[in-house]
Amino acid sequence: MTSSSADPGSLRPGGRTARVRAAVLQAAGDALAEGGLAGLDLADVARRAEVGRTTVYRRWGTPANLVADLLADMAEQSLPRTETGTLLGDLRANARLVQRTLADPRQGALFKAVIAAATCDDQAAAALRRFYDTRVTEWEPCARQAVERGELPAGTDTREVVRAVSAPLYYRLLTTGEPLDEAAAERAAVAAAAAARAGAFVSEAPEAP
Amino acid sequence: MTSSSADPGSLRPGGRTARVRAAVLQAAGDALAEGGLAGLDLADVARRAEVGRTTVYRRWGTPANLVADLLADMAEQSLPRTETGTLLGDLRANARLVQRTLADPRQGALFKAVIAAATCDDQAAAALRRFYDTRVTEWEPCARQAVERGELPAGTDTREVVRAVSAPLYYRLLTTGEPLDEAAAERAAVAAAAAARAGAFVSEAPEAP
Repeated sequence: MTSSSADPGSLRPGGRTARVRAAVLQAAGDALAEGGLAGLDLADVARRAEVGRTTVYRRWGTPANLVADLLADMAEQSLPRTETGTLLGDLRANARLVQRTLADPRQGALFKAVIAAATCDDQAAAALRRFYDTRVTEWEPCARQAVERGELPAGTDTREVVRAVSAPLYYRLLTTGEPLDEAAAERAAVAAAAAARAGAFVSEAPEAP
Repeated sequence: MTSSSADPGSLRPGGRTARVRAAVLQAAGDALAEGGLAGLDLADVARRAEVGRTTVYRRWGTPANLVADLLADMAEQSLPRTETGTLLGDLRANARLVQRTLADPRQGALFKAVIAAATCDDQAAAALRRFYDTRVTEWEPCARQAVERGELPAGTDTREVVRAVSAPLYYRLLTTGEPLDEAAAERAAVAAAAAARAGAFVSEAPEAP
């Protein structure tokens, strides 16, 4: 991409194509947060994004493609992990990030919508799995370094430690409706750290501690 | 309800009204498992259940009402808790029950469908919360008795211990797509027991163990 005088705002990295994508994905996220997958209409997204319908239909084609690209973008844009030097500190930072995201009205509604979409659309489900795979890969070194420091037992499934932080927060979002507050984040981090220390996530033959 | 010779099968408890409800809810569950909420159509459910359309429309009215009644029935029909005498034994039994339910093709698809419905329908969300509330109330004594036996610290939020067993299993079902196997159930039980023993679910001021 190069800038041109006919392309205002082209100093933004990526140029026109990237700007169009950013506007369309923002609009798609707004539409999903407001009305769920049922409310995701390509013509409506084009109107919200102030982008030509033809561009949106040609580039994304279907609502499922749009959801998949939105999840890919969310994975690319998501924050790098925090390093605090202790397992509990790192897991607490991760828990707070997940909790703030899910407690945010727009983001929480957006995650509900894409998870609901994934229950009935294989493409959305695959995109969702890739999103969590990216996030787990980003945060997994917290647990790996804790094993290296001797904070966690050898053989710990470090990816499972990271998933254990998210699970109770998503469970609240999707099923029980308990509040997604700071106390929930703290509890998720403390519980995951305690379970990991007790060897609950050791890969071979998990046993009662 | 009383039986009559004009009412074949009326020896089944509850009589005709209960039989109609059972047939309609079975058909609604089948339709949800096959096609999700979008595939839930009252006329189709009446046809599957071999019940008059008018009966289904008059008694349930909308797909959301049908989902809510299905969840109420699932809560009523769900199995009583297991008592093994130890916290880990009880949580393991709970984890295996949840895991087998979610790993079953029809039941897993049904849970995905009702959870997806709950993301965009307040009535379904309220019914889903009542379902989990009933299940947690059924299993909470496992943790309460563990507190009484001195296996868990005083002040433990016993309902949260039960939710901690389910959370990683639902997280697999809905987001990451990791297998819902016996090892996942064992890990969920061991992790919840370890976290609870370490005091992660003590209500007042959860602290790092």
